Amino acid sequence: MSTTPQPLIHESVEAAHKLIAPYIRHTPVLSSTSLSGLASSSDLVLTLYFKPECLQKSGSFKIRGATHALLRLPQSALASGCGVTTHSSGNHAAALALAARTLGRSTGNPGPIIYPIPAYIIMPNISSPGKIASVRGYGGQITFSGSTHPERAAVLAEVQQRTNAIFIPPYDHPDIIVGQGTAALELIQDLSPNGLDVIVAPVGGGGLLAGTALAAYGSGIQVYGAEPSEGGADDCARGLKAGERIPFVSTLTIADGLRTPVGEHNWKIISDQQYVKGVYAVSEEEIKKAMKLGMERLKVVIEPSSAVPLAALMFNAEFRQRLVQEFPNHAGPIRAGIVISGGNITLEKVAELFASED
Amino acid sequence: MSTTPQPLIHESVEAAHKLIAPYIRHTPVLSSTSLSGLASSSDLVLTLYFKPECLQKSGSFKIRGATHALLRLPQSALASGCGVTTHSSGNHAAALALAARTLGRSTGNPGPIIYPIPAYIIMPNISSPGKIASVRGYGGQITFSGSTHPERAAVLAEVQQRTNAIFIPPYDHPDIIVGQGTAALELIQDLSPNGLDVIVAPVGGGGLLAGTALAAYGSGIQVYGAEPSEGGADDCARGLKAGERIPFVSTLTIADGLRTPVGEHNWKIISDQQYVKGVYAVSEEEIKKAMKLGMERLKVVIEPSSAVPLAALMFNAEFRQRLVQEFPNHAGPIRAGIVISGGNITLEKVAELFASED
Repeated sequence: MSTTPQPLIHESVEAAHKLIAPYIRHTPVLSSTSLSGLASSSDLVLTLYFKPECLQKSGSFKIRGATHALLRLPQSALASGCGVTTHSSGNHAAALALAARTLGRSTGNPGPIIYPIPAYIIMPNISSPGKIASVRGYGGQITFSGSTHPERAAVLAEVQQRTNAIFIPPYDHPDIIVGQGTAALELIQDLSPNGLDVIVAPVGGGGLLAGTALAAYGSGIQVYGAEPSEGGADDCARGLKAGERIPFVSTLTIADGLRTPVGEHNWKIISDQQYVKGVYAVSEEEIKKAMKLGMERLKVVIEPSSAVPLAALMFNAEFRQRLVQEFPNHAGPIRAGIVISGGNITLEKVAELFASED
Repeated sequence: MSTTPQPLIHESVEAAHKLIAPYIRHTPVLSSTSLSGLASSSDLVLTLYFKPECLQKSGSFKIRGATHALLRLPQSALASGCGVTTHSSGNHAAALALAARTLGRSTGNPGPIIYPIPAYIIMPNISSPGKIASVRGYGGQITFSGSTHPERAAVLAEVQQRTNAIFIPPYDHPDIIVGQGTAALELIQDLSPNGLDVIVAPVGGGGLLAGTALAAYGSGIQVYGAEPSEGGADDCARGLKAGERIPFVSTLTIADGLRTPVGEHNWKIISDQQYVKGVYAVSEEEIKKAMKLGMERLKVVIEPSSAVPLAALMFNAEFRQRLVQEFPNHAGPIRAGIVISGGNITLEKVAELFASED
């Protein structure tokens, strides 16, 4: 990674956006009167705005951080041909492969390839065929590993030794964090000057939530996190209560992008009340209900992890009560922005989740 | 309907767009390098551009024609409070209900309601709960009927007698046709000046295809139609071969928006080679394959009817051979625009279509 990472401040998110803008999509803002209506009650009237990063290149926001991390590397490191590497079974793997392919060209995409940047992706050997195909489709070179952390780390070390590839971590690095924050930055700018009152982002490793908090810093917009509760996946909320980061999580929540513990850099931001006001958890059934509402009303494909913030806003009574208290005598509806982090799910998986039970 | 309908010419589509622009969404243009790659072969290289009308208000392009038809009514007719009516089990029903609610306000949405415009929707009593809820959600007043044409016509006559409501037909009217054409008009304008070579639209009643042809007229862009073959739903292609419109169709194709025969006004445009170059049909399996590819790659929700043009481009060998012949020595890929007509499908229905068979 870059020898001098970007400081974790708002201005770094703005600088990251300038760097990556030519290589990513500026996704639109979506809204649905009917969905806002369904999310409102007599004491909490909401207008919802959605940032659909499912429409982003690679199908998730992860391309923002990956592209930023690569652009922050010294040009000599990229031109060396040693390439980059990561371990991920999910969206970061596809994003890094695509970012490496895109930047391994002279100017923009699809210009001629001047220097290829190999992307070595370490994936658990139990990864789904769809995810493997996606990484290969973007030109990633896969090495399989066992699925435990020591097994993956061993294969990563072996690949780095063999290739000299630079490790690009999935979430716990300042260059990744400020890159992910550019999604919220666009949302805030696109809705200016009427503005937002609140932004809710999902939290797994915490890169997106920390980046969102930096993007919103100084705007007066409150930032909240949302996570699954299944099998202890609510490590962030539990950590906040206990006053320290929970470094290990083992859960099989359907929100498979949020199974990781919060990273160390991310924790510093997320546990600071001036950045993140609170984190709320939701059940598997609530995630499925939100996923159904989101897909049927917004007409975009939403993977389970990405339905978690909508689920928290709609179904977590404690979170809703908190908003009522935070905005007493608020003129008009509370305007809540929701980052839909990705849409990488097969229709067979949708079918498995929503098959009727008769 | 308006006493002097718009003439069926290109300029009417432009005029319609000016009228309806404040009330509809200007949907974006989507593309996917991987999907274009999958649709290309050694002899036919395609770059695909998609107009996702699933992201349109009411979830389909139908809001364009319905809004245009209402705006073309004399102000006195709307202000009378007699309202509007139609028979539809699908997207036109929801679109008319929403258009009536939107225009029953003083200026724009959500201004105060000055004069409400009731929308009386005649729906078959076998309509799905989801579709009934959608029409009711937009404020439509439903009267149920049998599902045959005489049964629906009888209920329509009864409702009109009782309410004096104005009948807004689903597709076979010039004001509807030029309204639907505004989707392709936006697509063409947004991709100017690099432009398109071809546009493909689905054809059921033919309003969207006829409107698309008027929108493209004079641009040099070739327009093609695509329809299901199941159970004789390929009435348009068969009619073109026989040299006359086929007025009756009875099919249960999964592309439920395309079960209707081509309307008379629409036929005049569609059967004229200077407007529509050809119409090609696809099987149920091809529609499902295209729906899966479209949703998984573009990350938008696509109902079966709306996957038909992509299916035709990817899987109809005759259509692909035709394009090879139409563009000999073409410099670079053939640029094909595809109108994704709508995304009104429940996740349960998606599950039914894509449940794995083990």
